[in-house]
Amino acid sequence: MLKNKMKELLKIEYPIIQAPMAGGITTSKLVAEVSNSGGLGMIGAGYMTSIQIQEQIREIRQLTSKPFGINLFVPNDFDIIEDQIKSANRPLNQIRKQLNLKPKESFEISNSHDVSHTFMEQIKVVIEEKVPICSFTFGIPSHEVMAELKQSHITLMGTATTVREAVENEKAGMDIVVVQGSEAGGHRGSFIDSDKESLVGLMSLIPQVVDNVKIPVVAAGGIMDGRGLMASICLGAKGVQMGTAFLTCVESGANQVHKEAILSANEDHTVLTRSFSGKWARGIKNKFILEMQEHEKILPDFPIQNTLTQDIRKTSAARNDPDFMSLWSGQNLRLAKNQTVSMLIKNMIAEANILSSLEEL
Amino acid sequence: MLKNKMKELLKIEYPIIQAPMAGGITTSKLVAEVSNSGGLGMIGAGYMTSIQIQEQIREIRQLTSKPFGINLFVPNDFDIIEDQIKSANRPLNQIRKQLNLKPKESFEISNSHDVSHTFMEQIKVVIEEKVPICSFTFGIPSHEVMAELKQSHITLMGTATTVREAVENEKAGMDIVVVQGSEAGGHRGSFIDSDKESLVGLMSLIPQVVDNVKIPVVAAGGIMDGRGLMASICLGAKGVQMGTAFLTCVESGANQVHKEAILSANEDHTVLTRSFSGKWARGIKNKFILEMQEHEKILPDFPIQNTLTQDIRKTSAARNDPDFMSLWSGQNLRLAKNQTVSMLIKNMIAEANILSSLEEL
Repeated sequence: MLKNKMKELLKIEYPIIQAPMAGGITTSKLVAEVSNSGGLGMIGAGYMTSIQIQEQIREIRQLTSKPFGINLFVPNDFDIIEDQIKSANRPLNQIRKQLNLKPKESFEISNSHDVSHTFMEQIKVVIEEKVPICSFTFGIPSHEVMAELKQSHITLMGTATTVREAVENEKAGMDIVVVQGSEAGGHRGSFIDSDKESLVGLMSLIPQVVDNVKIPVVAAGGIMDGRGLMASICLGAKGVQMGTAFLTCVESGANQVHKEAILSANEDHTVLTRSFSGKWARGIKNKFILEMQEHEKILPDFPIQNTLTQDIRKTSAARNDPDFMSLWSGQNLRLAKNQTVSMLIKNMIAEANILSSLEEL
Repeated sequence: MLKNKMKELLKIEYPIIQAPMAGGITTSKLVAEVSNSGGLGMIGAGYMTSIQIQEQIREIRQLTSKPFGINLFVPNDFDIIEDQIKSANRPLNQIRKQLNLKPKESFEISNSHDVSHTFMEQIKVVIEEKVPICSFTFGIPSHEVMAELKQSHITLMGTATTVREAVENEKAGMDIVVVQGSEAGGHRGSFIDSDKESLVGLMSLIPQVVDNVKIPVVAAGGIMDGRGLMASICLGAKGVQMGTAFLTCVESGANQVHKEAILSANEDHTVLTRSFSGKWARGIKNKFILEMQEHEKILPDFPIQNTLTQDIRKTSAARNDPDFMSLWSGQNLRLAKNQTVSMLIKNMIAEANILSSLEEL
């Protein structure tokens, strides 16, 4: 049995992290159950206020005494350009018509300064509540924020989609880096290399990153079972982070329509789109994605586009209509199951143990 | 030690297949050396005449007594549309100008019937020369051709990029199916699901295919070393097929400029393009790809576009100019080395043996 530095840092039994999916998926039950089952539960707090975060942390602590983590979105600078918003809103009003919603012309859009302020409030509550692990998507926090978190002995995880991004995470002082392959569902974590064309498959990404950083590497993107876990370890990762596999679990807060869409889709049904939020993300192809495809280039950046589409996504979800919701999913969807978290983790470990005793060469 | 049906079928010592790269890369020396080192050498015969094939088979037999294989392109129907050729040739004449080549206006383009005839001639020589293994790209041969090959006791391998394509290969009687992940260099082997958007990463593709076919699955796409081999086996594959890793080997016939481009590129430098041949293929981004990008949608199908670009590719290669050559490569290029075939295979097996004895959970 080798020492696994990633497991030591996170103080977990199994090298399995539940991906911090934002937007209500990571219920307290889901997070606590993952941690109680020996993995690491994570709050997807990207869109949460500091008060919501505080409440959820306290709720989770009622459900588990095990460590858990939280994920925040590192803000990117953006400009609010009225003309761009008008152009982007035109096709959205067409979609509102299909949903029998009134056309919408004005939006309350937070500016860069507001978003940065919210982020600092989030950081503050993470420190106050002594969350043991904090991960980041869409970039690396400032030197000052990193120093403050380190002083509070919080274990820090960054996200990378290329070797260069992984090296930057290490340089900035991250303890662990999550590498996100092209297979991953939901938002791309890219922050330097954000060309849609340059998506790297996980099997190529892991060894190239492992050869270029010293911190433990966690693999993310389409991992669903013990086979994916053992493959990641063979490639040099110290563990895995899984989104879609937990999303369809009983304890997840994902909309039932979203779960069912994943459970009945095939491996080539997902596409990358920036139409929902302004950032590239992988989801199951639906009417919204297809109708917005031709407008993709003119859409405003994250989080503006996300604000513009909010009423559409919410209405579609409330009506159990998969046509206009963001049905985020990774590419390994034929392996998705509707099971409990504890069954998922138990089966994974059993399968991985069998595989690690094989010698098939 | 488990039984490996794929190794038994191919009569090889190690579950390593050298990808049949067309266009002069798979020299007799390369093919023979892979087979002599315990893997399976393959002739990339897609663009070869039956006479060239016969000569190479005989040359290889002088160099090895071990089994080797051959790969053929299954013809697809296509129409020759004069206007489309004219439009596609306009940007190509711009590129010819940059190479100081005369503009070209007429081409000798084989029609669908000619291409089918060439394919049947290729099949004939494979049978006559009793090549033990034959693999196919871009589709599945007719029922009659499959039956004839089977009667000659030739082991048959198909190529698939989705579960559906793998299932079709099994139904048609293939003995083995090679699954090509999105990471793979060179041409996509797609023949049913050829949407560029639906590229599936190898780590997601292998388990989904393995769960849906009974024949042995071989993994292809960015595998370069023992880590990739063991990861593939964990995911359920019985072996690997490697292109880029063999392309930069000493014995490969790839242009030195092509080898050097791979050896100095990073994981996010490759893109998919159909500008070289009319079929989607992954190569290192260069001037040709960038300049043709905006015309990609109007280009004629394979093999017409391949004929149109032939003089450009040849001239660029003859001048050691990487700007207008097809620099095919997979996504794992930081792992590429200029080494001998025997070193590559020896190191892979040593690394895989170490990994298969690890127990890191």
